[in-house]
Amino acid sequence: MTVSRNNHLLMNYIRGMAKTLEEEWQTSARDLGLTLAEQHIMWIVYLEEKASISRIAKVGLWDRSTVMQVIKRLVGKGYVKVLKDDRDLRVSYVILTEEGKVKRQQTQKESFELFDFIEEYQKKNPGFMEQLVSFHREANRHFHGDEFVDWVETTTKEYDIKTSASGKA
Amino acid sequence: MTVSRNNHLLMNYIRGMAKTLEEEWQTSARDLGLTLAEQHIMWIVYLEEKASISRIAKVGLWDRSTVMQVIKRLVGKGYVKVLKDDRDLRVSYVILTEEGKVKRQQTQKESFELFDFIEEYQKKNPGFMEQLVSFHREANRHFHGDEFVDWVETTTKEYDIKTSASGKA
Repeated sequence: MTVSRNNHLLMNYIRGMAKTLEEEWQTSARDLGLTLAEQHIMWIVYLEEKASISRIAKVGLWDRSTVMQVIKRLVGKGYVKVLKDDRDLRVSYVILTEEGKVKRQQTQKESFELFDFIEEYQKKNPGFMEQLVSFHREANRHFHGDEFVDWVETTTKEYDIKTSASGKA
Repeated sequence: MTVSRNNHLLMNYIRGMAKTLEEEWQTSARDLGLTLAEQHIMWIVYLEEKASISRIAKVGLWDRSTVMQVIKRLVGKGYVKVLKDDRDLRVSYVILTEEGKVKRQQTQKESFELFDFIEEYQKKNPGFMEQLVSFHREANRHFHGDEFVDWVETTTKEYDIKTSASGKA
């Protein structure tokens, strides 16, 4: 389908939303001396406990080459380590160091005005959130595949357990 | 509000949606020898007929410095011209050249799989699109202000007239 009137509308609004998320994410990472990609990838490694480059690329929607560059920088900063799998030396895994765990934990406290807005919007429009999530879930499954969507859903279910446990650490 | 379970979900899904839009937009621009920013800014200039750097920055959600770089490249490619306002020589306006008009017209024919998906989704979920647009409109007004939202709404209303007129050119 070519660009039409409604697509012009959505294209501008979806891009506006994306800009807000990206800028807030970037600012929140920068406050802790990280880039958006570094912060994002540290979260993936944290939620996965150990993760291969391919897995990070897949569930983070990053190019493999970007993941490799970011991991290199994070190794340099002392936040992650790359280990060989004992059972298959061709496979490498990334894990957080103790320092990386502390840093990841700090990023959890950063606030996002976008989510305040969404929470307020939800109060005025009950039921909308479920529809918004369904739409995004289906679109993401269509464009990014099952592995990405399943990861988002699983880590959302585990989120409270994982993040409150680390909260006590 | 700090990052919570639902925010983790939305953060990943909104970013996934944004990636899809950006990649498709980039590909459609690249097919015609343009960057996403060049294509976007040519559309703004087209819809505005003549536009100042500040206006392009405001309604395109770009930094002024990015707009200036992109305009410089577009002048070099022969797609836009920068003119001084007769009544106020401190003000410059950007307009499309004839070559720029032809190029902008070509970009209109590019298709986006994301919009095919949204159209199909809408058929299965009647009424959802209005809610999705309302949500985005309100969020964009909150984060990017009235000038941006009013521009999106006005250009959406004028879209069919403007693009079909140029279709005949």
